[in-house]
Amino acid sequence: MRYLKLIVTYDGTNYHGFQTQKNAVGIQQIIEKGLSKLFGETIVVAASGRTDTGVHAKGQVISFRTKGTVPVERIVPAMVSYLPSDIVVIKAEETDKDFNARYCAIGKRYIYRILVTDNNSPFFRNLTWQMKNAPQIELLQAAADVVIGQHDFAAFRSAGSSAKTTIRTIYRAKWTQSNNEYQFSIEGNGFLYKMVRNLVGAMVRVGLGIITLEEFRVILEAKDRSLAGKSAPAHGLYLDEVFYEEK
Amino acid sequence: MRYLKLIVTYDGTNYHGFQTQKNAVGIQQIIEKGLSKLFGETIVVAASGRTDTGVHAKGQVISFRTKGTVPVERIVPAMVSYLPSDIVVIKAEETDKDFNARYCAIGKRYIYRILVTDNNSPFFRNLTWQMKNAPQIELLQAAADVVIGQHDFAAFRSAGSSAKTTIRTIYRAKWTQSNNEYQFSIEGNGFLYKMVRNLVGAMVRVGLGIITLEEFRVILEAKDRSLAGKSAPAHGLYLDEVFYEEK
Repeated sequence: MRYLKLIVTYDGTNYHGFQTQKNAVGIQQIIEKGLSKLFGETIVVAASGRTDTGVHAKGQVISFRTKGTVPVERIVPAMVSYLPSDIVVIKAEETDKDFNARYCAIGKRYIYRILVTDNNSPFFRNLTWQMKNAPQIELLQAAADVVIGQHDFAAFRSAGSSAKTTIRTIYRAKWTQSNNEYQFSIEGNGFLYKMVRNLVGAMVRVGLGIITLEEFRVILEAKDRSLAGKSAPAHGLYLDEVFYEEK
Repeated sequence: MRYLKLIVTYDGTNYHGFQTQKNAVGIQQIIEKGLSKLFGETIVVAASGRTDTGVHAKGQVISFRTKGTVPVERIVPAMVSYLPSDIVVIKAEETDKDFNARYCAIGKRYIYRILVTDNNSPFFRNLTWQMKNAPQIELLQAAADVVIGQHDFAAFRSAGSSAKTTIRTIYRAKWTQSNNEYQFSIEGNGFLYKMVRNLVGAMVRVGLGIITLEEFRVILEAKDRSLAGKSAPAHGLYLDEVFYEEK
């Protein structure tokens, strides 16, 4: 038996999220179908986590086992033929029996992209959150600084979230700006369902002066989901990298 | 009667070109439908020219006349509701009776985008020509320099082209490179059907060392379509700007 780890990038626009669903095509389903064809047997993958409808990935990690004999260096080029052009395997490596893309993940980085523009660009419509007013980068970063460290993020979980604990540790939360493009990068040991989008929504309201930094701090501390306000749209969000223990 | 000029940007991925066709949806059809709703009467537009299936526009120009009374400054925001998010009106102005977006055009600029990458990016799949090997920017520019000026571009027309004359004047043809992104910008008094894509295809072969600069020159001078080779894919091409006489 072989144990394999793949890094996958995808444009989530045309899919109902990562996970295979009853009545909608999930990215996982497409990848499993392609891998099954390549290896000549049914492949079932584990992934670092789900991504929602419209959410993208630059570095989703999946793992699976197979008796198939396709050499590891053939996987990336061969999968081009077995996947649509919006899902691309960028790296493949042999791993050991104990590796599981989901359970072995010790952290993740997400990216959120915003474009400030008077007229929405058709080319960025599925890849960024486009808005007319420019948030203040200093205010965005001040809000980001508030979430660094260990906190109870109950205020920023999804309404339907069933996580056992809502405490997470954020290692890094950084806003950058280049002309009219804003990018938020956040690394942590884990994220609640919709947590990044809820955080971005609230941080942008700070950046636009709709709420104060102090109000943002109160929302976090109150641990009350109803205070956090509208979440940022899915199509600006990218799962950027998943972290594992060095072997 | 009012005479209006609009600048429109669109992602051509989901359409069978600009022109309304019998069995496929054209961008023109969508725009006319939206304008007809906005103005409360049937609107028929003239455009600076067609774009092919998959080709994009940053600055397509259209003109039309209407008895509708919608103020000119309301057109851009109102059309957001009447168009899908991949077609966006970015400017609207009143013009005079004699203005026709097609017949009054005195020149155009096209952009062609290339991305050099080992693994095709899903995010750029419809917006750039992705290739593994890097063309040499000096060779690309040397080929571009050959086409500047007035030439008979018969070698770079489409097989099905029926233009009366194949002589065109190119004012500017410039390749730029930023890391792994290459961009070609070409301005001229007019372009034959598929001329830019045929030129880019041949220039890239020069840039990759598949043909020599001298062979490129011979192809242009021979005026023989069969020599120019495969054209560059549609999805890297953008109609960037259309030029009109200053009033």
